[in-house]
Amino acid sequence: MRILVVNVNTTESMTESIRKGAAAAASPGTEVVGLTPFFGADSCEGNMESYLAAVAVMDRVLAYDEPYDAVVQAGFGEHGQEGLKELVEAPVVDITDAAAHLAMLLGYRYSVVTTLDRAVPLIEERLLLGGLSSHCASVRSSGLGVLELEGEESTVVDAIVRQAELALKEDGAEVIVLGCGGMAGLDKAIEERTGAPVVDGVAAAVKLAESLVGLGLKTSKVRTYAPPRPKTIVSWPLSRHISRDGSSA
Amino acid sequence: MRILVVNVNTTESMTESIRKGAAAAASPGTEVVGLTPFFGADSCEGNMESYLAAVAVMDRVLAYDEPYDAVVQAGFGEHGQEGLKELVEAPVVDITDAAAHLAMLLGYRYSVVTTLDRAVPLIEERLLLGGLSSHCASVRSSGLGVLELEGEESTVVDAIVRQAELALKEDGAEVIVLGCGGMAGLDKAIEERTGAPVVDGVAAAVKLAESLVGLGLKTSKVRTYAPPRPKTIVSWPLSRHISRDGSSA
Amino acid sequence: MRILVVNVNTTESMTESIRKGAAAAASPGTEVVGLTPFFGADSCEGNMESYLAAVAVMDRVLAYDEPYDAVVQAGFGEHGQEGLKELVEAPVVDITDAAAHLAMLLGYRYSVVTTLDRAVPLIEERLLLGGLSSHCASVRSSGLGVLELEGEESTVVDAIVRQAELALKEDGAEVIVLGCGGMAGLDKAIEERTGAPVVDGVAAAVKLAESLVGLGLKTSKVRTYAPPRPKTIVSWPLSRHISRDGSSA
Amino acid sequence: MRILVVNVNTTESMTESIRKGAAAAASPGTEVVGLTPFFGADSCEGNMESYLAAVAVMDRVLAYDEPYDAVVQAGFGEHGQEGLKELVEAPVVDITDAAAHLAMLLGYRYSVVTTLDRAVPLIEERLLLGGLSSHCASVRSSGLGVLELEGEESTVVDAIVRQAELALKEDGAEVIVLGCGGMAGLDKAIEERTGAPVVDGVAAAVKLAESLVGLGLKTSKVRTYAPPRPKTIVSWPLSRHISRDGSSA
Amino acid sequence: MRILVVNVNTTESMTESIRKGAAAAASPGTEVVGLTPFFGADSCEGNMESYLAAVAVMDRVLAYDEPYDAVVQAGFGEHGQEGLKELVEAPVVDITDAAAHLAMLLGYRYSVVTTLDRAVPLIEERLLLGGLSSHCASVRSSGLGVLELEGEESTVVDAIVRQAELALKEDGAEVIVLGCGGMAGLDKAIEERTGAPVVDGVAAAVKLAESLVGLGLKTSKVRTYAPPRPKTIVSWPLSRHISRDGSSA
Amino acid sequence: MRILVVNVNTTESMTESIRKGAAAAASPGTEVVGLTPFFGADSCEGNMESYLAAVAVMDRVLAYDEPYDAVVQAGFGEHGQEGLKELVEAPVVDITDAAAHLAMLLGYRYSVVTTLDRAVPLIEERLLLGGLSSHCASVRSSGLGVLELEGEESTVVDAIVRQAELALKEDGAEVIVLGCGGMAGLDKAIEERTGAPVVDGVAAAVKLAESLVGLGLKTSKVRTYAPPRPKTIVSWPLSRHISRDGSSA
Repeated sequence: MRILVVNVNTTESMTESIRKGAAAAASPGTEVVGLTPFFGADSCEGNMESYLAAVAVMDRVLAYDEPYDAVVQAGFGEHGQEGLKELVEAPVVDITDAAAHLAMLLGYRYSVVTTLDRAVPLIEERLLLGGLSSHCASVRSSGLGVLELEGEESTVVDAIVRQAELALKEDGAEVIVLGCGGMAGLDKAIEERTGAPVVDGVAAAVKLAESLVGLGLKTSKVRTYAPPRPKTIVSWPLSRHISRDGSSA
Repeated sequence: MRILVVNVNTTESMTESIRKGAAAAASPGTEVVGLTPFFGADSCEGNMESYLAAVAVMDRVLAYDEPYDAVVQAGFGEHGQEGLKELVEAPVVDITDAAAHLAMLLGYRYSVVTTLDRAVPLIEERLLLGGLSSHCASVRSSGLGVLELEGEESTVVDAIVRQAELALKEDGAEVIVLGCGGMAGLDKAIEERTGAPVVDGVAAAVKLAESLVGLGLKTSKVRTYAPPRPKTIVSWPLSRHISRDGSSA
Repeated sequence: MRILVVNVNTTESMTESIRKGAAAAASPGTEVVGLTPFFGADSCEGNMESYLAAVAVMDRVLAYDEPYDAVVQAGFGEHGQEGLKELVEAPVVDITDAAAHLAMLLGYRYSVVTTLDRAVPLIEERLLLGGLSSHCASVRSSGLGVLELEGEESTVVDAIVRQAELALKEDGAEVIVLGCGGMAGLDKAIEERTGAPVVDGVAAAVKLAESLVGLGLKTSKVRTYAPPRPKTIVSWPLSRHISRDGSSA
Repeated sequence: MRILVVNVNTTESMTESIRKGAAAAASPGTEVVGLTPFFGADSCEGNMESYLAAVAVMDRVLAYDEPYDAVVQAGFGEHGQEGLKELVEAPVVDITDAAAHLAMLLGYRYSVVTTLDRAVPLIEERLLLGGLSSHCASVRSSGLGVLELEGEESTVVDAIVRQAELALKEDGAEVIVLGCGGMAGLDKAIEERTGAPVVDGVAAAVKLAESLVGLGLKTSKVRTYAPPRPKTIVSWPLSRHISRDGSSA
Repeated sequence: MRILVVNVNTTESMTESIRKGAAAAASPGTEVVGLTPFFGADSCEGNMESYLAAVAVMDRVLAYDEPYDAVVQAGFGEHGQEGLKELVEAPVVDITDAAAHLAMLLGYRYSVVTTLDRAVPLIEERLLLGGLSSHCASVRSSGLGVLELEGEESTVVDAIVRQAELALKEDGAEVIVLGCGGMAGLDKAIEERTGAPVVDGVAAAVKLAESLVGLGLKTSKVRTYAPPRPKTIVSWPLSRHISRDGSSA
Repeated sequence: MRILVVNVNTTESMTESIRKGAAAAASPGTEVVGLTPFFGADSCEGNMESYLAAVAVMDRVLAYDEPYDAVVQAGFGEHGQEGLKELVEAPVVDITDAAAHLAMLLGYRYSVVTTLDRAVPLIEERLLLGGLSSHCASVRSSGLGVLELEGEESTVVDAIVRQAELALKEDGAEVIVLGCGGMAGLDKAIEERTGAPVVDGVAAAVKLAESLVGLGLKTSKVRTYAPPRPKTIVSWPLSRHISRDGSSA
């Protein structure tokens, strides 16, 4: 089974760390392919970048020309999974949803610890849309920017643990969800420090993707995620029309 | 006062009919500028096209280099307003939200009549996110595709009236909302036929934009809609990097 | 266009300050008429007074015998708008609803800062009924009685700012709503101090009333707000039967 | 123990039939006093009349100068109980709430069968405010006006049974609530016809009032229902200032 | 009238104190019978024990072979009332529901003060299922184990008052609900200390049971609580098949 | 990895068909052990039987004295998983939750098709408690009793397909969930007939259990599901004290 794990930002090193986390979670016989979008921001920390990522992820998956069995969208609280579900036959699993689903199996309430405070509303909105918010005790920010997650591991873990402990003590959380794709692989360190189960969305999504594939289940094409109607789409897929040199700061 | 009214699809004639509807609603002294995205689908009838529109609208507004006072995003139930609110200083009003806000002032419950059945979930999700769903009696589809709205007016009105009457009779609606930017200008014809107030989102959004500008109110930059953090964004704005000739069917 | 702005209490000086705030928000060509009920409390700070105001406002509007285009009910969190909507052909806009509607266009969550703690449940209940509570972060009291709002402006502003800052910092609010008709005109001072957009319900209601009138939209008469059925109503309108001299403390 | 049962309309014969229903439900040792407001509509079938009733009920209770132990407000879905709770030391029980509370003890979901369709939103709003709507399957109208309830009993029962049966069969109701004070005493006839428990709000309220009095429980004066603050209230209580001869049609 | 009050644990002394509280609340002419399950835990402080209690209570009631008019299940936040409602003709009142229903009549919001923190989720879940949570301000734990409630009364009252005061001051509660059957009889002491009405679920349930019996109302047998279908049930009722000597620690 | 799949009724043939379905879904290397409770009903079709099953399942798992990695509770909409989570170290997955979680990944809304109408409220309540109801379009009954599922497969499939098609057409469902453990193995036949993805809870639960075990995730012991406190429990585990010969009809 081959699972595409698509980063939502253009930082290749982050794609690689996500891919590693995914591969570590995968069952024997599952191949994980990491994909980086051709355009977009080097980190998604707001709606503008997240919408760009939504399109860049669809564009990147369309450009992949080998067979695959499932797609994991590896951005936490990001836009776009609904579009991907229309475009693709294979099941699509978003890491936000995946983490919340597994967390709900493990305790009465879960809290998300994410990066910056401004990411909180995006995550809250995704959980609301996904029907996943009634057991969410809180979404807390660690204050770390996305790219800071690639810094010293102990600093990163400390910042996450601080919020996780507050969530457990003050918000009634019983499970912690790591609220950024870039936190992949930190779950066990935080679990050890807090004593609560910690769910990493990338790993969770890989397992759910494997589960769906294993059961022969695919996205329903009945209504919402039916394939796009045939129509004229100017400059689509965008990456075929973009000169890939430019960037803005 | 100058208001940018941005179509979400690339069909220029639809931009023009939206612009006309907006101009008709505007107060004396308000200039309405219609904008068409540089890329994207000729009609938005699903999530994939809607996400593309979200980015194309942001891209189009950034390319507009004259001063303006407010932006109206003229797609019903489409993605993107949150990104635009980050990018732009001026107030941003989405026609979905605008229509729902005014409808809630006019009756106990409102129903939306939109185009295709597959647009229903997008609208329901936008109303949910906007906190606008508790007085929404139903979202009904007329069965018309977006571009069919440019056909014979009486046929279009008939199809909308049919669903509006069911909404009033069976769903408990007391107000009807036109669920597509391309329905701009049909409100009075449907009001006459149904006896209920009919809200056209484009007109509603123009009035709300004028209201905000008149009161000196702008999007809060406190957290969610703070300007994007400075960072490297590959190929952004996209239209500067796209060769604008290509299209796919 | 003529808009009736009806105070909910019998304090004439407050009617005048509300009228001024309304007039300042109105477009050129809009005439604002301030009305004071013939009976009721000199300030509404609870349900008993609010119900009395509901009736006194209907009574006062019925006694107005010139033409008008819209009615603004200028009590925050007060009862009565549903009755007025039945009685009157023209659109009716309550300042609570108006403020919340505009606040929802400006940020992810808003908080209301009102007068006394005992007013909080009335406001929460009105927002719940209006379908306006899902983006309300909190309703906070400044501790000021309604009539204290007519005191030294800097003291009043200080008390409101204190709660507004807590709302922004602790409750996740991004927009502040002034939770009393008597706070009309303080919005810009508080905006300056807090850095967040501040919505004054009286001004918001005038703009929404102008918008509805401009679009030719009126209250739906389909069901909930259909005119009262013909029937015997003892002593109605009350003011025609009341000797207007009496008062109780 | 003496319980005041206050009609919300000015029709004395309806007060009497409500009083009879209340007395039939009361325990030995409970005296039921029926009160009719001094002003207001001869039937409440909408918000305007309901707000007038809210004030007239408060006014009527204040005019009662003997001791009493509890007050029952005998209007279904009417405004006003919150004001009465502020004014009065003794417990106040509204028949809408009372019926819903008992119905929730008897089955998974209940439906209300009321008079006219236009009363439905008032009842829905009261149940929402009372926190009583999550087990409400539906509110259905029998099509009968309030005063028509005083007509031939079999016709009235037939009309109610018709809707009750639809509620049981189509809406998932398991218990029926009689949605008008004027239906007092019809419960057993409808129970026999439908096979489901039928709750009469007047009887339910008497029992709940007796329960509260028996347990020494009174309305909390902590915040929401604290006594009104001392202040000038023009023409209050209204009935002392009204010449009680006038009426309008 | 005879009411069975069934303890959920096997501690006879607690059954007796519950029975006393129930008898004190009962009207003249009501006989209260206290029942102790034949098996189960000596205190219910979690789901495992609560499920066992659900079955033990059904079993105990089935073994009671005298006539009775109503059953009170005297465990706060415990499982089982739905099963009992299927098995029994007479009305069944759970003390959690009873307390919440009466509390909702007395104030805008109520808080529950219970025993251990781990009981909080059970109570929250029961209130959610019962449709009783929208006016619940909080569920707070006193830190006392169930059997500690049988210790020095002043210590117990102190621990409850401490949380009650926090609920009133910080959570917006206006009424306090005693969140354990073993707290029966402490209501007045806590009322005196806090100034807010205090509802004891056992007393409340007795009054509601009397009310239902007095009105001739029984559990609906329409669907959810219809009698169990005839079928083979191995070892049921359990107590007839259990050797009643064994216990585990 | 060894997964215990526990039937909730005492019908051995149903345990075997559930075990087969589970084994078919399991990955190579996963051993599935089917367990039948020692007491309880031969089918669970209501709350009384379901509570008995809750206890019997806990009892049965405690009696299993070999090592295992996860437990699947194979009753749809049944009580008990919270107790099992307290008793057991290994992850516990309920088939109701499992099916809903996977269904939510596959489409905008799902419907459950279950056995008898009286099972509907149990399922609705479990989905509500599990935080899984916001994307549930409907719970429909096929009219088949649990044991009838062991009859002619085509009859069973027909009855389920009839309701599934109504759910897809009238309720807005896009995914179908099989609402009884005894329907295990019918998913592909119904998928073929309806064109929508069909989720079998037993298979789903096995996959989720494998996922949790694979990721080293266990039930949180932080609060709700902490091990029961040490205490005296009369006759527990029940099966050690029961003479296993008796049954009642």
